[in-house]
Amino acid sequence: MAAGISHHPAVDAPVFDTVALIGLGLIGSSLGRAIKKWGLARKVVGSARTQPTIDTSLKLGFIDEGYIDPADAVREADLVVICTPMGAYKAIGEAIGPALKPGAIVSDTGSTKASVIADLSPSLPAGVALVPAHPVAGTEHSGPEAGFAELYIDRWCILTPPEGSDPAAVAKVEALWKGCGSNIEIMEAGHHDRVLAVTSHVPHLIAYTIVGTAQDLETASAQEVIKFSAGGFRDFTRIAASDPTMWRDVFLHNRGAVLEILQRFSEDLTALQRAIRWGDGEQLHAFFTRTRGIRRKVIDARQAQPETPKKATEGG
Amino acid sequence: MAAGISHHPAVDAPVFDTVALIGLGLIGSSLGRAIKKWGLARKVVGSARTQPTIDTSLKLGFIDEGYIDPADAVREADLVVICTPMGAYKAIGEAIGPALKPGAIVSDTGSTKASVIADLSPSLPAGVALVPAHPVAGTEHSGPEAGFAELYIDRWCILTPPEGSDPAAVAKVEALWKGCGSNIEIMEAGHHDRVLAVTSHVPHLIAYTIVGTAQDLETASAQEVIKFSAGGFRDFTRIAASDPTMWRDVFLHNRGAVLEILQRFSEDLTALQRAIRWGDGEQLHAFFTRTRGIRRKVIDARQAQPETPKKATEGG
Repeated sequence: MAAGISHHPAVDAPVFDTVALIGLGLIGSSLGRAIKKWGLARKVVGSARTQPTIDTSLKLGFIDEGYIDPADAVREADLVVICTPMGAYKAIGEAIGPALKPGAIVSDTGSTKASVIADLSPSLPAGVALVPAHPVAGTEHSGPEAGFAELYIDRWCILTPPEGSDPAAVAKVEALWKGCGSNIEIMEAGHHDRVLAVTSHVPHLIAYTIVGTAQDLETASAQEVIKFSAGGFRDFTRIAASDPTMWRDVFLHNRGAVLEILQRFSEDLTALQRAIRWGDGEQLHAFFTRTRGIRRKVIDARQAQPETPKKATEGG
Repeated sequence: MAAGISHHPAVDAPVFDTVALIGLGLIGSSLGRAIKKWGLARKVVGSARTQPTIDTSLKLGFIDEGYIDPADAVREADLVVICTPMGAYKAIGEAIGPALKPGAIVSDTGSTKASVIADLSPSLPAGVALVPAHPVAGTEHSGPEAGFAELYIDRWCILTPPEGSDPAAVAKVEALWKGCGSNIEIMEAGHHDRVLAVTSHVPHLIAYTIVGTAQDLETASAQEVIKFSAGGFRDFTRIAASDPTMWRDVFLHNRGAVLEILQRFSEDLTALQRAIRWGDGEQLHAFFTRTRGIRRKVIDARQAQPETPKKATEGG
């Protein structure tokens, strides 16, 4: 994923005069740093729940001004990007609605999108455009210090503008993320939520679950589980180390799609469990052969580096 | 995982005069290369099912002689290491039993261990020691060309000698794997199988399952699933790309422990599924917080590199 500024498509910078970031954690601080690094806005104003986070962000230099009250942060903003866990969106929308400038654009970085439209639309005055966005990028670290300007380079940013959105507003949000190095995809919000339920939300829930199951065992000590985690479990611990508040909100805000995929997953797992119980080697082999091909396609799509043959990863 | 020969504990090389490798895929060829590279045996004899595999192995130089019939390969061997999928062990044991030299040691590299003792013991003549071994290492690649001498450096190798095993035989197998750079753990076979069911076998089954579930969806195209796999799914595709024959045999040979862990996993997943359905954010948050801590312990145990904060991995 390492890439330099040369990867960026040319955008006419600055894209915005003033951008307000509501939430200054990993995602907000990375966006702020990218805006600063590549001159995508003249001014960045930030809002966080605590003064120490604001002070750290000012010191790190990715915001020019900071406020506890999000309404204070958005008054001059041409673009507001909400970068908090999604459980806070509704209250933030209500707080900033009356303070928004006519013609302002409101966007976000949340991992589910239909809920964003439902939570924010009622609070936005006429003349303010809502362009929800989901940059599909992150790390297992949190907080303003964890951010870095290159986080979004070569990653997808999915925009889900509601039907009838102003094309000019969509184009400006698109230009901002292109300026951060992202590839843009435009999708209907509900479709986004179903795709991400499969590629992200349910995999995370499964990873959290198996790590929890392992912690509860009496037959293998926690120390042994950790010691021999190279066998496959290790990858799950990385996924299950993600931010608990963010992920709680993901599951609560994409309930329908997550439950639908989970139901299918459970059926498929039960079928394999039955094959193991009854010693049906042919069924197992056929299933494992079928799933193998998708890895090559993922690598071809440049979503994963082909693993170097000279690096040990895991065993049985 | 990169490490040089300097990491190796000193062993008196050669440990064996003649080693026979039955199976010349990733695991067997890596062991052969390590034996050659660090002079752990004077001679390596190989056996594979097809002449092209034998010819490739001779050309790559990690065996000195090769035979289709495993009995021919073991006649002079002081140590025989079976490196095939576990479904072949019983027939191999029956084939090599009468050809084994008095005082020979038989070992293997399989991912389950109680089944190995059950499958091989009946065929081994008196005076031949069985010292099952499981090097917890691998890659997603297969075949003799995929092997490399450094595969086992800094990885665990678990030995599960049956009760009453000759300590001298165990010590020699231990010395061989130390010579390959591995760390040694000695465990009861059944306990090994329960620990690995959690750290490896069930995680693999889950990864295979979710990749299969995704392939079957009508709501998201296969292309979209691949495109947005960076959200977490990507890690599962890597695990689910593992060798189908090897993994079929793992599940058939560790049925009891795998079914036990699967049952617990399903219960835990059902509890989270219910929390999502009923909007119980507190339960979700508490669970996700609890599982986060184990990641730090895995990193502390040097089973995973701490992810560099400057590298994007995944998002929601």
